[in-house]
Amino acid sequence: MSVTLGDDSFRSAIGEVAAILEDYWEDLREERLPVTPDLRPGDVRAMLPDCVPVHGEPIGDVLADVRRVVMPGLVHWQHPSFLGYYPTQTSPASVVGELLASGLAVQHMMWSTGPAATELEEAVLDHLAVALGLPERFLSTGDGGGVLQDSASSAVLVAVVAALYRASDGRWREHGTEGRYRLYCTDQANSCVPKASRIAGLGEPTQITTLAGTCEMDPRALREQLAADRAAGVVPAIVVASVGTTGTCAIDPVAAIAAVCREFGAWLHVDAAYAGSAAICPENRWINEGVEYADSYAVNCHKWLLTGPPCDAMWVADRHSLTAAMDIRPPFLRNQASDSGNVTDFRDWQVPLMHPFRALKLWFVLRTHGVEGLRAHIREQLSHAALLAGLVRDAPGFELISHSLGLVCFRLAGDNARTEHLRTELDATHQILVTPTTVDGRYILRAALGSRLASQTSVRNAWALVREIAASIPDDRPALSETSPTTSVGAR
Amino acid sequence: MSVTLGDDSFRSAIGEVAAILEDYWEDLREERLPVTPDLRPGDVRAMLPDCVPVHGEPIGDVLADVRRVVMPGLVHWQHPSFLGYYPTQTSPASVVGELLASGLAVQHMMWSTGPAATELEEAVLDHLAVALGLPERFLSTGDGGGVLQDSASSAVLVAVVAALYRASDGRWREHGTEGRYRLYCTDQANSCVPKASRIAGLGEPTQITTLAGTCEMDPRALREQLAADRAAGVVPAIVVASVGTTGTCAIDPVAAIAAVCREFGAWLHVDAAYAGSAAICPENRWINEGVEYADSYAVNCHKWLLTGPPCDAMWVADRHSLTAAMDIRPPFLRNQASDSGNVTDFRDWQVPLMHPFRALKLWFVLRTHGVEGLRAHIREQLSHAALLAGLVRDAPGFELISHSLGLVCFRLAGDNARTEHLRTELDATHQILVTPTTVDGRYILRAALGSRLASQTSVRNAWALVREIAASIPDDRPALSETSPTTSVGAR
Repeated sequence: MSVTLGDDSFRSAIGEVAAILEDYWEDLREERLPVTPDLRPGDVRAMLPDCVPVHGEPIGDVLADVRRVVMPGLVHWQHPSFLGYYPTQTSPASVVGELLASGLAVQHMMWSTGPAATELEEAVLDHLAVALGLPERFLSTGDGGGVLQDSASSAVLVAVVAALYRASDGRWREHGTEGRYRLYCTDQANSCVPKASRIAGLGEPTQITTLAGTCEMDPRALREQLAADRAAGVVPAIVVASVGTTGTCAIDPVAAIAAVCREFGAWLHVDAAYAGSAAICPENRWINEGVEYADSYAVNCHKWLLTGPPCDAMWVADRHSLTAAMDIRPPFLRNQASDSGNVTDFRDWQVPLMHPFRALKLWFVLRTHGVEGLRAHIREQLSHAALLAGLVRDAPGFELISHSLGLVCFRLAGDNARTEHLRTELDATHQILVTPTTVDGRYILRAALGSRLASQTSVRNAWALVREIAASIPDDRPALSETSPTTSVGAR
Repeated sequence: MSVTLGDDSFRSAIGEVAAILEDYWEDLREERLPVTPDLRPGDVRAMLPDCVPVHGEPIGDVLADVRRVVMPGLVHWQHPSFLGYYPTQTSPASVVGELLASGLAVQHMMWSTGPAATELEEAVLDHLAVALGLPERFLSTGDGGGVLQDSASSAVLVAVVAALYRASDGRWREHGTEGRYRLYCTDQANSCVPKASRIAGLGEPTQITTLAGTCEMDPRALREQLAADRAAGVVPAIVVASVGTTGTCAIDPVAAIAAVCREFGAWLHVDAAYAGSAAICPENRWINEGVEYADSYAVNCHKWLLTGPPCDAMWVADRHSLTAAMDIRPPFLRNQASDSGNVTDFRDWQVPLMHPFRALKLWFVLRTHGVEGLRAHIREQLSHAALLAGLVRDAPGFELISHSLGLVCFRLAGDNARTEHLRTELDATHQILVTPTTVDGRYILRAALGSRLASQTSVRNAWALVREIAASIPDDRPALSETSPTTSVGAR
């Protein structure tokens, strides 16, 4: 075997990377790095080698290119002033667990190809469900159970597939969607929801209107739509509710939506990709009101639970609908354990056949932090958001649009162009990242607090930068209002 | 922030895991571990803690449980005598790259959220395409381009989605499949192909018969089926050809299939999940004859290219069909770079929104091994397969069914029960894993050679064990044949 990096030089290379990461996190914590790089398309590629070398190169050369080209060209998602989208985070414990999984290179598509990996994953998801206060019906000790998907997107798609199986009494497996089934959500649902509808062959979802003055689904409008569709011969297969929309972290009224779903036999999937992690703190459990009636539920542990991407925890109340929809049993996968029906084969819980050992990193995080450690993390981020919301509220010329969990939405008073201008100017500093959304025609900026490396000081510094940049933006109004009313979008 | 494993103790924990992995690989190389564990369902779970602890535990306690419960309960996919399914492998260079990616925790769903990660991925896939001798139309420098999916399953699904967009002139995005479109493959296609058809809302695929005495798709039968379907108002959307079927590593006649696809306007996806890596050696390039006419192509680098799972390299000839099918542009993802149309946003190349930094581990492998290092790896595995095939051929009582690249298929002479019995007895030793398939009603065993830790000696030892166990199986025939004819299934 001809390899340049042999098992013998492995440990020193690993040590070198560990040192790089320690320095990296320290640089981020101290804000010695920008948040985004100042690059044009093609700049990085021009600095990279242009082919696979004929002969292997020393790992040191590759690491040198990592420092020279790759790291300076990244957006630093863990930076304290990365406030864009929703956070994607990791932690030392997660990275240690991921290294172990990487070296073991096990793939437990079935129990028989990784019994310990399968049972650990089942256990970890049961334990996490209990820690989050999720309903008992999601536990694997009953008819339910959990699985780690890569993303909330995949979780939605899997839920759609299970819903189609159930709605069609299995006919869908052979005959497909036949133009008969439909998915429902609001225009505030994450883009992965219409994408899943499309991928599953349902076309565009039907949009349900939001309650006036909010970004929350209107259960009455849902009921009317489902009744009209059913009368027209359409089968309402699935409703996707959001616990924490991407735009403003609005919480759909899940209990009322669930009642409508029951009436029409529709599957209810709850997408709690971001907000779900907050339920580790008892005081935040209200976000999951009504989830006990959901058919499936998903939360991205890589967003707010200190576990590196990709790691989406998904639970179903009735595992049978899922596995019956997805199962495949070619001769080359037949084995005694699967045939017995006594084991979980994760191949039937997801799109891919292969199933990587993500449970290990999540287990490392849960055990080394403990419930109290994770609560402390969430509460710290919530305190950062509260601090920022207060700063926005007190700042002349700014409007606090909403403050829900770790997400603070704001804009400049006046027309949208001013806030768009502010965003462009903030981007140009490369020292902070906030990303926009639009609600009722208003262009607003979202600041999502979630970096484990952030502090009260970093939040104050970030806000000072926003104020400074805003001060340079021409005022298109006669006078800036000194009061900035908070509307209730997404707040509760 | 309350965490037990702080950044300060990170490096020592990483060092401990690196040592565990070094020992693990050495134990595997020396075959000091069984291949599969001797466990009943529930055994592992009973040894695990039963909840998330209230307070964080030392990482050492978690690692102790890993050694005590997790590692002894795994199937060791990297073991020299793991000959089941197709290999899933990693290498030291891949693990180093994955550690780095894990700590950086970047997700480049769009160029703007990770310019260097995006451009590195584009570059690596161009470089790999060239190294594999794939057609120029797959390069990102033209209309094509590559992306890393998690698995061949996801690649097929993505190809189906792009095919539906193209076949419907975009109508599918809004209206779904409407019961009009169809996917075609043989019964030898991997189970992920019918699964993708189902997930995409097409129902079961239409099976095309194989050429007599082979496991290869019959292009004439394909043509007849497509003509009949078109006449009946069905739209032939996509044909999936296999370069290396899972059962016997049969190679579909891609050029002839492509001609039929062109005639009917059907998308051609080539699933080269396992065999595709062999093309890194010029002498194996024949497997890709006709691929220059394919619309998409995928190979699992985690199978045979020393890159850890998940890592599937997928290329398309026309990126537009893919991105037009998949794109989503909610307000919260809008950015200047995407709007310019000058960058690649991988969110539009895959099911999930988030896109993890898998390119790093693949880049580490390609650079530290070089083309010649990877060729040496493939050639060594092929020599192991040739050795095993010769041993089977020379063994009285055994039939060599096929030998294609690294896969050797065999059975015991006589009825299926004898070979089924052999498999059960081999499983019970836990010292070797071979997995079955069925071809034309014959139950056969598959031995896929691919462990980087294997040697000529380990192959001879594995075969000696098979002979020894086989000798204990009652003979149901008057006399064992001394000659065992090789049939041409999948061989070429």
